[in-house]
Amino acid sequence: MNAIDQIREPLSVRQACRTGGFDGPTSGQAPGFAQGNLAILPADLAKDFLAFCRANPKPCPILGVSERGDPHIPELGADLDIRTDLPRYRVWKKGELVDEPTNVATYWRDDLVSFVIGCSFSFEELLLQAGLSIRHIEARTTVPMYRTSLTTTPVGPFGGPVVVSMRPFKAADAIRAIEITSRYPQAHGAPVHFGRPDLIGIRDIGAPDFGEPSSIAADEVPVFWACGVTLQQAVETAKPDFAITHAPGRMIVTDVPIELASA
Amino acid sequence: MNAIDQIREPLSVRQACRTGGFDGPTSGQAPGFAQGNLAILPADLAKDFLAFCRANPKPCPILGVSERGDPHIPELGADLDIRTDLPRYRVWKKGELVDEPTNVATYWRDDLVSFVIGCSFSFEELLLQAGLSIRHIEARTTVPMYRTSLTTTPVGPFGGPVVVSMRPFKAADAIRAIEITSRYPQAHGAPVHFGRPDLIGIRDIGAPDFGEPSSIAADEVPVFWACGVTLQQAVETAKPDFAITHAPGRMIVTDVPIELASA
Repeated sequence: MNAIDQIREPLSVRQACRTGGFDGPTSGQAPGFAQGNLAILPADLAKDFLAFCRANPKPCPILGVSERGDPHIPELGADLDIRTDLPRYRVWKKGELVDEPTNVATYWRDDLVSFVIGCSFSFEELLLQAGLSIRHIEARTTVPMYRTSLTTTPVGPFGGPVVVSMRPFKAADAIRAIEITSRYPQAHGAPVHFGRPDLIGIRDIGAPDFGEPSSIAADEVPVFWACGVTLQQAVETAKPDFAITHAPGRMIVTDVPIELASA
Repeated sequence: MNAIDQIREPLSVRQACRTGGFDGPTSGQAPGFAQGNLAILPADLAKDFLAFCRANPKPCPILGVSERGDPHIPELGADLDIRTDLPRYRVWKKGELVDEPTNVATYWRDDLVSFVIGCSFSFEELLLQAGLSIRHIEARTTVPMYRTSLTTTPVGPFGGPVVVSMRPFKAADAIRAIEITSRYPQAHGAPVHFGRPDLIGIRDIGAPDFGEPSSIAADEVPVFWACGVTLQQAVETAKPDFAITHAPGRMIVTDVPIELASA
C-alpha cells in the first residue's frame, strides 16, 4: 500500500512501517510530532558529517544522532529502531542508488551512525495551525524545491549547494510565516530568501529541480526556506562507499512534540 | 540647543529636559532603554483612547498609562514627570496646534491622563546591534513615513489610517529584521508589509508623507513597520478640545531596558 488514513500516535506510525503495513509519504501523519530526514553513514565519515550539519544549521538542523552501531536513538523515541521504522529507504554505494527497501536490517553494520535532521513537515503544520494556507498542500502537489547559488559551508567531503523549498504568500502572511518559523530552528527556522528568485540563482521559478511547480499570484512573493534535500545533495556529492537515506517524503516520525500553539 | 552628546542614563536625559538643557531629538540617547511617543488627553476621552490603542497594538503598543491627573508614571521611571521630562511638546486645541513648549506645567489639569506608546527607536537599536545597517541612519536623514490604505480599528472618535515607516533591506536582512522585531511587540513588533508599496496604498515611495525619502537598491525591498505617527493622526482626527503630544522625534526616555542581545 502507498497511503493510509491518518495515524495519530508516532509509535503507531513506526509500528506500521516496521510490520510493512505502511510505505507511503509521512506528511500529515502523527500531527504535532516532529519528523526527520535520515542519513546513515559509516563511522569514519560521521565526525565530518556532524561538523557539516553543525556548520549548516538552517538546511541541516540536527534532531538526533545515534551511537556508533546502535540502531536506536532514545531521545527521539523510546523503542525507535532506525532500521525498520521508516516507510522506505534508499541505499547508496559510492554515490549510486542501489536499493529502495522498506527496511535496512539486512544492510546493518556495526560501524554505522544515524543522523536525523529536522524537516519542513513540522513547520507547515504550525503555519496551517496559524491559519495560513499553503499552496502546494491546497493543490495536493509536492512542494517545489530548487538548487540555489547559495552554498553550504563545506566540511571534509561534504558540501554543495543549498537546496530550498518555496511557498508563495501575500506579504502580510509571509511576515507571519517568518515570525512563526523563526521560532523553530529545528525545522529549518526562518526563510533564507524571499522575492526575486534570480538573486539566489534560480533561473525559472516554474521549473523546480525537485517536486512540482506552485502558482504565484501577482500580489504574492515566493518565500524560500532551506530544505533537507540539501543533506541528500551533500551525501551524493561526497559519494561515500556506503550510505542509507530515507526515500523522498518518507520520514522518520519521532516522539518529539512540536509546539502547536501559535503566538 | 538642539543636540547634545550622547547621554547614557535615562534619568540624566530626563533631567536635561527638565532643566531646559536639552530640547533635541532623543534618537541615540540612553541606548538600551525604551523610548515612547506621548499622548495626554482629558479623562473623558481616556477610556476610548485606551481601547483604541489596545485594538491597534502594532501602531500603538502601550508602554505605560498614568492615573487621572497624576503627572507620574512610576513603571516607566521612579521620578519621571511627564510635564517636564520630554525635550519638547505640542499642545493642541480642537485639533489645532497652539504651542510647542519645552514643558507643559502651565497647561496641566487635574483631569489629564498620559499615554506612552512604544517607538521604533528601540527596535532600530536592536537591528544595529544585530549588524544590520539602516539606510536613513547611515544617510543621517529622518525615516520616511507614509499614510497607507490600511486602516486602524476605530474606537469612539479615534480612527484613521495606519502610518508606516519604511526601511529598505536585502531579502536576507529583511528576514533577520522581521525575526528580531517580531520579538518586541512593545516597539511595533514585526512589519505590516514589504515589497510593492501600491498594495498598501502608497503611490510614490519617493515622496513620503513625513520624514525624508530613502534610496532603495535594485536588490533591496522596502519593509514597512507600523509607526507611532498613527497615534498622532488618530488624535488629530478626533480633534479633542485639548491634547498634548510629544514634538516629532522628541520622545520620553524611560527606565525600561530593551533587550540588546541578538538571538
